[in-house]
Amino acid sequence: MTSSIPKIEQPRLGEPYLLTPGPLTTSYSVKQAMLRDWGSWDDDFRAMTREVRSGLLALLGEGGADFDCVPMQGSGSFSVEAMLASFIPRNGKALVLANGAYGQRSAQTLQYLGREHIVLDKGDYLPPRGDEVARILAEDPDITHVVAIHCETSSGILNPVEEISEVTYAAGRKLLIDSMSAFGAIELKPTEIRYEAMVSSANKCIEGVPGFGFIVARKSELEAAKGNSHSLSLDVHAQWAHMNKTGQWRFTPPTHVVAAFIEALRAHAAEGGVAGRGARYTRNRDVMVAGMRELGFETLLDNRWLSPIIVTFFCPDDEKFVFDQFYKLMKEKGFIIYPGKLTVVDSFRVGCIGQMDEHVMRKVVSAAKESLEEMGVTSAAPPLRALQERAKLAA
Amino acid sequence: MTSSIPKIEQPRLGEPYLLTPGPLTTSYSVKQAMLRDWGSWDDDFRAMTREVRSGLLALLGEGGADFDCVPMQGSGSFSVEAMLASFIPRNGKALVLANGAYGQRSAQTLQYLGREHIVLDKGDYLPPRGDEVARILAEDPDITHVVAIHCETSSGILNPVEEISEVTYAAGRKLLIDSMSAFGAIELKPTEIRYEAMVSSANKCIEGVPGFGFIVARKSELEAAKGNSHSLSLDVHAQWAHMNKTGQWRFTPPTHVVAAFIEALRAHAAEGGVAGRGARYTRNRDVMVAGMRELGFETLLDNRWLSPIIVTFFCPDDEKFVFDQFYKLMKEKGFIIYPGKLTVVDSFRVGCIGQMDEHVMRKVVSAAKESLEEMGVTSAAPPLRALQERAKLAA
Repeated sequence: MTSSIPKIEQPRLGEPYLLTPGPLTTSYSVKQAMLRDWGSWDDDFRAMTREVRSGLLALLGEGGADFDCVPMQGSGSFSVEAMLASFIPRNGKALVLANGAYGQRSAQTLQYLGREHIVLDKGDYLPPRGDEVARILAEDPDITHVVAIHCETSSGILNPVEEISEVTYAAGRKLLIDSMSAFGAIELKPTEIRYEAMVSSANKCIEGVPGFGFIVARKSELEAAKGNSHSLSLDVHAQWAHMNKTGQWRFTPPTHVVAAFIEALRAHAAEGGVAGRGARYTRNRDVMVAGMRELGFETLLDNRWLSPIIVTFFCPDDEKFVFDQFYKLMKEKGFIIYPGKLTVVDSFRVGCIGQMDEHVMRKVVSAAKESLEEMGVTSAAPPLRALQERAKLAA
Repeated sequence: MTSSIPKIEQPRLGEPYLLTPGPLTTSYSVKQAMLRDWGSWDDDFRAMTREVRSGLLALLGEGGADFDCVPMQGSGSFSVEAMLASFIPRNGKALVLANGAYGQRSAQTLQYLGREHIVLDKGDYLPPRGDEVARILAEDPDITHVVAIHCETSSGILNPVEEISEVTYAAGRKLLIDSMSAFGAIELKPTEIRYEAMVSSANKCIEGVPGFGFIVARKSELEAAKGNSHSLSLDVHAQWAHMNKTGQWRFTPPTHVVAAFIEALRAHAAEGGVAGRGARYTRNRDVMVAGMRELGFETLLDNRWLSPIIVTFFCPDDEKFVFDQFYKLMKEKGFIIYPGKLTVVDSFRVGCIGQMDEHVMRKVVSAAKESLEEMGVTSAAPPLRALQERAKLAA
């Protein structure tokens, strides 16, 4: 088993692993690629920009020829805003499928943009399903676009984008996907799931460092996007047209972050692309979840909905369990975990992405076990209301 | 002389010096600070964000207590857009003082924003003067804000922001400054020049790597900015309020770029702050300009308007001089120069900022001399119409 798993570079200088949905732990080679400076209009850097764009398009598989890739400065949320503003025309109307913070953020962005929209709000984690989306689209012919979150890291759920895509196009509407934390580890082939555009960022499953995002969109949508954007900086059409014409970014790119990303893309390919990367993360999740369950922790989600990106666990029903202390103890042992985002019950999250493998995940479980012991927590079982909450998924 | 100049770190791996207004050559120590990962919500990184903000505010001197600093993801232009949208109310009107690409970009940004504005367009390089600004403000009482470019790198001119500030406030209006390429090397003390807000970025005179910008604004303006922004990502008020409340950036920060910037800020302080940094760049400019003039090159600008940031030279009036070839020859010798942006006559630019000192600048001049010889150019003197163009400045 172990021999087939690619070599993982360990953090140096005693720095902790980041068990989070990003910023995440990157390899030392990726960071070393930042040890020089580039002129952003020089040929050398233009070649780097080309490699980023073509490397990302290659991840789409065969259907990629109809698409183009537009890197965008800023965090991933900047790219989401750029996508929404550029592809939903000013007289369009969006249906946002929300089951967590990132769906809500898309709705908030549309509010800023003054784009008409409605939100299907499924609460903390319940997945938006195809049949209910179809019903809303049938009832509201003004809706032109559906906005879906691929992996909603608020809960760690992998939303059913396939069935959402099917009903969206069956109703003659268009789909935009926020695949921020999923792209690169979970397939999003246009030959299998139809969509007009998607976004992700440098610092997720490709394992680069943070500093830019990217929009992957059908060329026909990119052409049609002219004049839609509310913002000079975030205008996807303008960035695309300029990049195709000059090979340069319109405004200063984060050159070092781009260099790191190229190293990350090469490592991604060497690991076997999306399939290989996804397999490692899935193994990370399986080993970590099995170990945590053995300690008595319960996951928010049934296995069917668990993403290989990040997993939400209920906090134990034990007054000796204090999250801030648990966080501190885990950090002392070399692991930075992530607070939960559920509104109904206390929870925390553990990420499966980044430069980590199953051996690291076993140490995470050991660290959790020791931390519970140090806190004097004897059972990691959650309160009854947590299990009642989870039962909603089966209903 | 030499002993008083701080030690400059040379580029490694044979990489060329970037004689440009950014991305520029940074020290190896700055880049080495990127060799680890940080969790952006962890205490360690919050402390880094605090250090960035307080370090930048300290550069304002005594008047800084009324101001706060808001870092913003993306390139410098993203921060300019954020400033314009956040501080010019939707019913405001701006007067943009343009004498190059960056003034034009501010106007274009306001066009996107749908903010009313007029442009005083001085062409390629002529400086907007106090008396003409005063006249426009007197004639148009609807103007609420004046937007000025501190150093317009299109020509390298240092615009007279002092006199612009005086007439702006004498007329009861507010000043916003794009100090992108000047801040950190040229004083912008609110006790000496009144303004409401200014922007710059990580990768200019502080000598960090590119990936974020920052807005420095009066707290009263930050408070009043709520609801002004057209963009969730670029909302300065929201970023400021969130940062003050949580210590975190709203969306994923470029953690490695921030780490590099802290190293750069410390080096900036060690060099003697704005005064020390400005002195080195001024010496760079003086040595480089004197050497280039000795070769026969002529600067676009009179000494009075020459910034210590970047200098525009006319191309020689010799058919054997081909800029692309000159660029290539200079690059082979280890120096990346910058094309010109003048519309009327051919020109090129040489930057004075980044990890370089007068010894490097002497080598730049030698490289230019050799490159001319290799091209067979016997005189670097510009065409007559270039000198006629320059004469406009004296008029």
